[in-house]
Amino acid sequence: MPARTLSSQLPELAGKPVRLQGWVHRVRDLGRVRFLVLRDRGGLAQIVLPTNLDAKQLGCETVVDVTGTARGEPRAPGGVEVQAERVDVISRAEPPPIELFNPKVVEETRLDTLLDHRAVSLRAPAVLDVFRVQATVLAAFRASLAAQGFTEIATPKLVLAGAEGGSALFEVGYFERKAYLAQSPQFYKQMMVGSGLERVFEVGHAYRAEKSETSRHLTEFVSLDFEMGFIDSEQGVMRVLARVIGEIFAAVNERFPKRAKLPVVNEIPQVDFVEAKRLLADRFGKTDGLDGDLDTEGERLVGEWARRELGSELVFVTGYALSRRPVYAMPHPSDPTRSASFDLLYNGVEIVTGGQRIHRYEQLVAAMRSRGLEPANYEDYLAAFRHGMPPHGGMGMGLERLTKQMLGLANVKEACLFPRDRNRLRP
Amino acid sequence: MPARTLSSQLPELAGKPVRLQGWVHRVRDLGRVRFLVLRDRGGLAQIVLPTNLDAKQLGCETVVDVTGTARGEPRAPGGVEVQAERVDVISRAEPPPIELFNPKVVEETRLDTLLDHRAVSLRAPAVLDVFRVQATVLAAFRASLAAQGFTEIATPKLVLAGAEGGSALFEVGYFERKAYLAQSPQFYKQMMVGSGLERVFEVGHAYRAEKSETSRHLTEFVSLDFEMGFIDSEQGVMRVLARVIGEIFAAVNERFPKRAKLPVVNEIPQVDFVEAKRLLADRFGKTDGLDGDLDTEGERLVGEWARRELGSELVFVTGYALSRRPVYAMPHPSDPTRSASFDLLYNGVEIVTGGQRIHRYEQLVAAMRSRGLEPANYEDYLAAFRHGMPPHGGMGMGLERLTKQMLGLANVKEACLFPRDRNRLRP
Repeated sequence: MPARTLSSQLPELAGKPVRLQGWVHRVRDLGRVRFLVLRDRGGLAQIVLPTNLDAKQLGCETVVDVTGTARGEPRAPGGVEVQAERVDVISRAEPPPIELFNPKVVEETRLDTLLDHRAVSLRAPAVLDVFRVQATVLAAFRASLAAQGFTEIATPKLVLAGAEGGSALFEVGYFERKAYLAQSPQFYKQMMVGSGLERVFEVGHAYRAEKSETSRHLTEFVSLDFEMGFIDSEQGVMRVLARVIGEIFAAVNERFPKRAKLPVVNEIPQVDFVEAKRLLADRFGKTDGLDGDLDTEGERLVGEWARRELGSELVFVTGYALSRRPVYAMPHPSDPTRSASFDLLYNGVEIVTGGQRIHRYEQLVAAMRSRGLEPANYEDYLAAFRHGMPPHGGMGMGLERLTKQMLGLANVKEACLFPRDRNRLRP
Repeated sequence: MPARTLSSQLPELAGKPVRLQGWVHRVRDLGRVRFLVLRDRGGLAQIVLPTNLDAKQLGCETVVDVTGTARGEPRAPGGVEVQAERVDVISRAEPPPIELFNPKVVEETRLDTLLDHRAVSLRAPAVLDVFRVQATVLAAFRASLAAQGFTEIATPKLVLAGAEGGSALFEVGYFERKAYLAQSPQFYKQMMVGSGLERVFEVGHAYRAEKSETSRHLTEFVSLDFEMGFIDSEQGVMRVLARVIGEIFAAVNERFPKRAKLPVVNEIPQVDFVEAKRLLADRFGKTDGLDGDLDTEGERLVGEWARRELGSELVFVTGYALSRRPVYAMPHPSDPTRSASFDLLYNGVEIVTGGQRIHRYEQLVAAMRSRGLEPANYEDYLAAFRHGMPPHGGMGMGLERLTKQMLGLANVKEACLFPRDRNRLRP
């Protein structure tokens, strides 16, 4: 028997004997001829069934092994179809709960139904493609940072306390004690800058026990983080980030020319928070919900302004109020009530939060005290600062939210294989 | 001011003005001359201090900014040292609890002490290098699988039940309900084979609430997993794995020629479990602890045998008893009491468990029933099988244990940045 051929390899095999293995995407009976559309990891293949074959056993999603001959056929995908000599069933299948081969049906199916039947609904090509794009995002994120001198790290998700403040922590029974699921790798990545790696990144799960259910929140998400030492200001972080985003977009454009047309990113424009407030008032008459940072509507409008007036889907907003940022945020050198930090908006949605961090021990301890935090509770973290930390900063970005914005999805859950929210713990 | 130079760039800069930033590794006062050894992410640099400078401010771990001139000096690392004109303190530092510049002191420090002071002990070059190797392992693992047609996935760690059986699960308070931390991505990666991606891999945390504390267990570890469809037997998985291991070893040898001398891996020898039992009895007089699989001592002895008689640090053991493998394990076609599975031993320690899985729905349901498991509790997982699954298999490998074996470390905790065990939840 010949070795397996993927559907994507067929165009080079016209005239040759081939063997395909995959799922029955559908069978189309045109009377004179019956086509089996086979789906494998390469895509779809058009297979002409032998006239004597009983097609009743070939229901949708049946796993089959097909041997036959490839031949040119202009109307087939890739210009080549397969005349089957033999079709063997590898695994039988019950009919799927959703008509997977019909893009319109899949598109109109409620998201909750798609998620309830995730093991099957992922088989719809448009649903699965999101995760091919996502794998490309991950690879490009890492490649860009590795090229910029960063080292990958893995930090614990079982922790004694949250790094981001607030109470949105999941509690874990840890033998006789209690632990929590990390909201972010913030403290650990800072400690790793101090370890001497200087430039570190992590791709790992992060957890937020958010009670509210929105189209952009998950309780478990993949956090893309980097942190870097020896910067002069938050601008050093923003430069690295702009290159990372540009390289991610370029990789996705290259690999998915039909699905993605993402902007070419060189420099990303910036707007200071005070300036953003002024233009929201002047252009949009919006003055509420801007107490030190932008609310969701403010982000949307700044994004609209940036697209229209700067011709950019991406825009940095800098200089949010220090009180609206975490305790480790560095005050702005020219205005101590504001922070040396930034958000990155992408089509009006915040996809990145970052900035410079406090690096001097005494300053960090004072910042903790001013917020009513007890430094003794942060002893392990503070040890890095006690023993010499360089100026540093970094950023965090949710993979699912980035993917959603890149592909124009309606809900972040479409960009998560098996999403978790307040009500959803399965599949 | 000139841009920052890394210590590793100095060899090309003799005669040029340079600016270095990093940590004071140590100051050596030879009377006539005082050296500051500066540590940055590139390594170490030898700096001659100006005679008029007060070195008291330059305690170990102080973060400094040095400007001066590079010049040839055969006794300096890389053949170039820096005559400093100016040394500015960026961040002061308390003296570290461990003499970081002294490899002998670091080596003789108790592991618990190193771990208690992890933010600082990681700064010792020999301690930190482990994680540079580990980052290379991760990159090579992904690159090898991507080249073999695999797609990266991220699956949930918050789950309703464990995939590996047993009760070693951490419980999480999930709003009004209970969830558990995933022991492995097993069920999800199988579902993703069925999604049509066919070949998937994941790098993610996994959790085992193991009460016992050993030198090779962690409660939270990084699991390297892959799973692939359309295999003929477990041998297809083993071939992919052998290539992955070979490419990891080659990448580490290339990047760390001083630290690593790992074997060149082409084919990995195999020994059947029954054969392994016989040779343990014949060569080592060992007959106990071999009830269907190898105990720790059995693994050690088979590893010794493979190294001595086959000249291989790696050896596959195949055909363990079906009863000693999880419910999803495929029975061996020639002996249904044994499994189509394997372990990979590396210097006598199991680093990988893998095999072929059951792919037919009815067979999987029957296997569950025969073990007293209720299929209705596995509905989401079984949905993938109900709707057509190809023959498939895969493997799981702990990153920290692999790193330990590669570098000959005494304890797996040395290969984890911030290890977690029954007693350790910090730093």
